[in-house]
Amino acid sequence: MRVLGIDCGTEYTGYGVVDLCHDGSLTCRACGAIKLVPRHSMAARLSTIFDGLGAIIVEHRPDWVAIEDVFYALNVKSALKLGQVRGVAMLAASSAGLEVAEYSPLSIKCAVVGYGRAEKQQVQHMVTRLLHLTEIPEPPDAADALAIAICHLHTAATLERQRVGAG
Amino acid sequence: MRVLGIDCGTEYTGYGVVDLCHDGSLTCRACGAIKLVPRHSMAARLSTIFDGLGAIIVEHRPDWVAIEDVFYALNVKSALKLGQVRGVAMLAASSAGLEVAEYSPLSIKCAVVGYGRAEKQQVQHMVTRLLHLTEIPEPPDAADALAIAICHLHTAATLERQRVGAG
Repeated sequence: MRVLGIDCGTEYTGYGVVDLCHDGSLTCRACGAIKLVPRHSMAARLSTIFDGLGAIIVEHRPDWVAIEDVFYALNVKSALKLGQVRGVAMLAASSAGLEVAEYSPLSIKCAVVGYGRAEKQQVQHMVTRLLHLTEIPEPPDAADALAIAICHLHTAATLERQRVGAG
Repeated sequence: MRVLGIDCGTEYTGYGVVDLCHDGSLTCRACGAIKLVPRHSMAARLSTIFDGLGAIIVEHRPDWVAIEDVFYALNVKSALKLGQVRGVAMLAASSAGLEVAEYSPLSIKCAVVGYGRAEKQQVQHMVTRLLHLTEIPEPPDAADALAIAICHLHTAATLERQRVGAG
């Protein structure tokens, strides 16, 4: 199973593609961030995000897309801006016929570190370890996107075990 | 000059296409609302909006797209949802190579009624009069979208007069 995690942002939108292998191990297929130009209009930035995510989906063909549920956003104005990016990310997924799973920051930290109030550095450190990377993914938005993908794979694996156990 | 006004919403997204004729009069080319199914996922609803607005742009070929600047939204959660719709509406415009103008609710009411604190009913009444319609456009989201388009045409006409006056 392959998951594309997306960390939505108005300056950088991070992405991370993670495979769950048959032996249960995780592999990073790709990660990075779509950098947005602050002087560009919001409409132009949204096009950059949509086209960028579309290209990543075409190249890596994920089975699922996972994004962070961001209602903790600081204020109404930043929530509106972040919502715009989120809408376009969800559209990129649904245009490709993919379903979108949403996870709270708490769930993501729990899945990756085992502790919902973990610090950002702990999340980045665990992402690096779980994916057997030689260094922490850069920029931080890429590491965050990988954490979101790992969260979805953990959740999917747990649901599958429960299904098999119940069957 | 032809403008597509969009009134973004998570249940109904209104649209209105208005022409500014050579004699300075305004004509409604089309108006209505894209109805969204509440039980559908947000990703599916965003696809419906994107496809719907794309079809309207292809059919009516507006020169500009105008939307409401909605930072007055009630709370962070509703701002995020509305932002998602807004992001997709802006993407539909920029995908078609169109620029997006944003207007505050105050500017829209001023342009249509001449009074920034006008009631919703007054706006609907003036939209009906300015466009020589026989009845108030339904649903209300369609009337709101027409008001946004009228606001852009008024602003563009004023800017043009200033440009000519200065030249």
